[in-house]
Amino acid sequence: MQNENALFYECNFFCDNAIFVRFDEKNAFFITDSRYTTEAKEFIKCAEVLDGGKNLIQKLTELIGKFNPKSVVYDPREWSVEKFKFLKKDLHVKLTPNPNFSQIKREVKTKEEIKILKKAAKEGKKAFNKFCEFIKKDGIGLSEKELFFNAELIFKSQGKFGLSFLPIIAINENAAKPHSIPTNKKLKKGDLLLVDAGITYKRYCSDRTRTCEVNDNMSFSKKQHFSDKKKQKIYDIVLLANKEAIKAVKPGIKAKDIDNIAREVIKDAGYEEFFIHSTGHGVGLDIHELPAISQSSETILKDGMVFTIEPGIYIPNEFGIRIEDMVLVTKNGAEVL
Amino acid sequence: MQNENALFYECNFFCDNAIFVRFDEKNAFFITDSRYTTEAKEFIKCAEVLDGGKNLIQKLTELIGKFNPKSVVYDPREWSVEKFKFLKKDLHVKLTPNPNFSQIKREVKTKEEIKILKKAAKEGKKAFNKFCEFIKKDGIGLSEKELFFNAELIFKSQGKFGLSFLPIIAINENAAKPHSIPTNKKLKKGDLLLVDAGITYKRYCSDRTRTCEVNDNMSFSKKQHFSDKKKQKIYDIVLLANKEAIKAVKPGIKAKDIDNIAREVIKDAGYEEFFIHSTGHGVGLDIHELPAISQSSETILKDGMVFTIEPGIYIPNEFGIRIEDMVLVTKNGAEVL
Repeated sequence: MQNENALFYECNFFCDNAIFVRFDEKNAFFITDSRYTTEAKEFIKCAEVLDGGKNLIQKLTELIGKFNPKSVVYDPREWSVEKFKFLKKDLHVKLTPNPNFSQIKREVKTKEEIKILKKAAKEGKKAFNKFCEFIKKDGIGLSEKELFFNAELIFKSQGKFGLSFLPIIAINENAAKPHSIPTNKKLKKGDLLLVDAGITYKRYCSDRTRTCEVNDNMSFSKKQHFSDKKKQKIYDIVLLANKEAIKAVKPGIKAKDIDNIAREVIKDAGYEEFFIHSTGHGVGLDIHELPAISQSSETILKDGMVFTIEPGIYIPNEFGIRIEDMVLVTKNGAEVL
Repeated sequence: MQNENALFYECNFFCDNAIFVRFDEKNAFFITDSRYTTEAKEFIKCAEVLDGGKNLIQKLTELIGKFNPKSVVYDPREWSVEKFKFLKKDLHVKLTPNPNFSQIKREVKTKEEIKILKKAAKEGKKAFNKFCEFIKKDGIGLSEKELFFNAELIFKSQGKFGLSFLPIIAINENAAKPHSIPTNKKLKKGDLLLVDAGITYKRYCSDRTRTCEVNDNMSFSKKQHFSDKKKQKIYDIVLLANKEAIKAVKPGIKAKDIDNIAREVIKDAGYEEFFIHSTGHGVGLDIHELPAISQSSETILKDGMVFTIEPGIYIPNEFGIRIEDMVLVTKNGAEVL
């Protein structure tokens, strides 16, 4: 494997040029280049660190030749056509594709991971509150770009945390684009503001979205009041979809059934065509991982899975509303993190 | 193509889920999903924006079927084994691999791109100077992590610029790891400090490295004084390698000959084994692009190419020194940006 988070999960270290391979309990190898070998050796206890120089794949081929396993499992999503061709060229061993096998392995979180994710979610929430105070004090008149810059600062908390992704800060009609890019549009009182942001703590991600009306009493709680009736109506639909989906989460239920519960609420209200994405996604080392909470996901929820519930309604050129929480599946249902 | 910078170069817009295909002058398509279509339509003038829903590749297959070209050129580095298998499944058109074709197209910069890159380099230098002032005033006693956080702030310049990569801030023995990750190690006077950082301006990157001794008169100029004789000696070797390589740059010379000039200086001084990477890399929309200034690069330099010259010597567990400049190939030689 080569994906940074997959490497980190196995080895407690990662870099942007490495291949990890395991043949058995005792024989695992982390192949990288000389820019990273010194550090890799400091951190990696579960594998031998090898310097593959300019050709990591050749080193991998040599190892496979030496250990001569019946088959080597690889992830066809992380190998490019070019690299894979090069790997296959000299190999006489069967290569077995197993799409996403690292994410599948990481789908149910360990106790330690849940502890870290809880802390990440808690710190993410704190940052939302700090960002809210910032907006009340200094935010009016700033552009989305300036708000974005300040959100980055606040969420990073003086470098204590990383960002799980670049914050989405969208005003009014820009919020109708689910992954809006910050513009020069300036914030004024009475605007609708959508904030989607998260931090990383020990590389694990938090993820949360709130939509609110900007005024002196604004907050990023789920209880929101909008002066505009249409906005309030749609907010209430999205909130109901969010709550109903969370209420239904429990071990044994299919992910697509959770998606369907949120989707039905929005459909019943007549806005189905404006809910243009899935209800949620797993969160862990990757900001988007398994399970997908989507219309086609047959995954059966298990105790220890962590994912988002984030229904949204997007009215092009008017506004968008999304409410997103991170939940942990427990024996008794869902715990909102 | 799917790579974000390749998309931006063709379309003036990018997102993390899109495929661009061009059949002829008049028929080009940007296929994305509904999260991005509204914005894509605002920005993209050179292609028709299509909503590919959950299956962009199927939409691509339909288009290829409709236009029925003799062959479709693709980059085998950006297609994963899984996606490519899916693409091939229903196609009866020849797929022609052309590794890195977008970077090859972008190897010689246009006048407009050179203007932007010059501005990026200038602003990058300004940020180095600001960071130097910060260190003199507040940096002593801060950890690499804290310095890293402040470098990010300073290089982003209140959100005016992006970062072309995460800054490398390394003290003493950590500088012996070319891509060192910031630690809790604290900065004190007399330390060796390596800073490798760059900004993005209109998505174009700057890239620069300086190594210096930390004291009240420190600067990030190339002229450096080290109290320690060994450090001074090695600094002078790296500086000579940097200067000789830059001096040799001109149209018509091979990239590998430039690498060799830097490498020979270091070899003659007896430190060849400690120069563990290439002499440089192209810079543009990607922080690492073509041409590679490496031992194996047969590329013939052309007027308008932009790349780094960055020799280094890394003594494990002691210290590392790297001096990096961005240069533009002109008719007359090299212009340091």
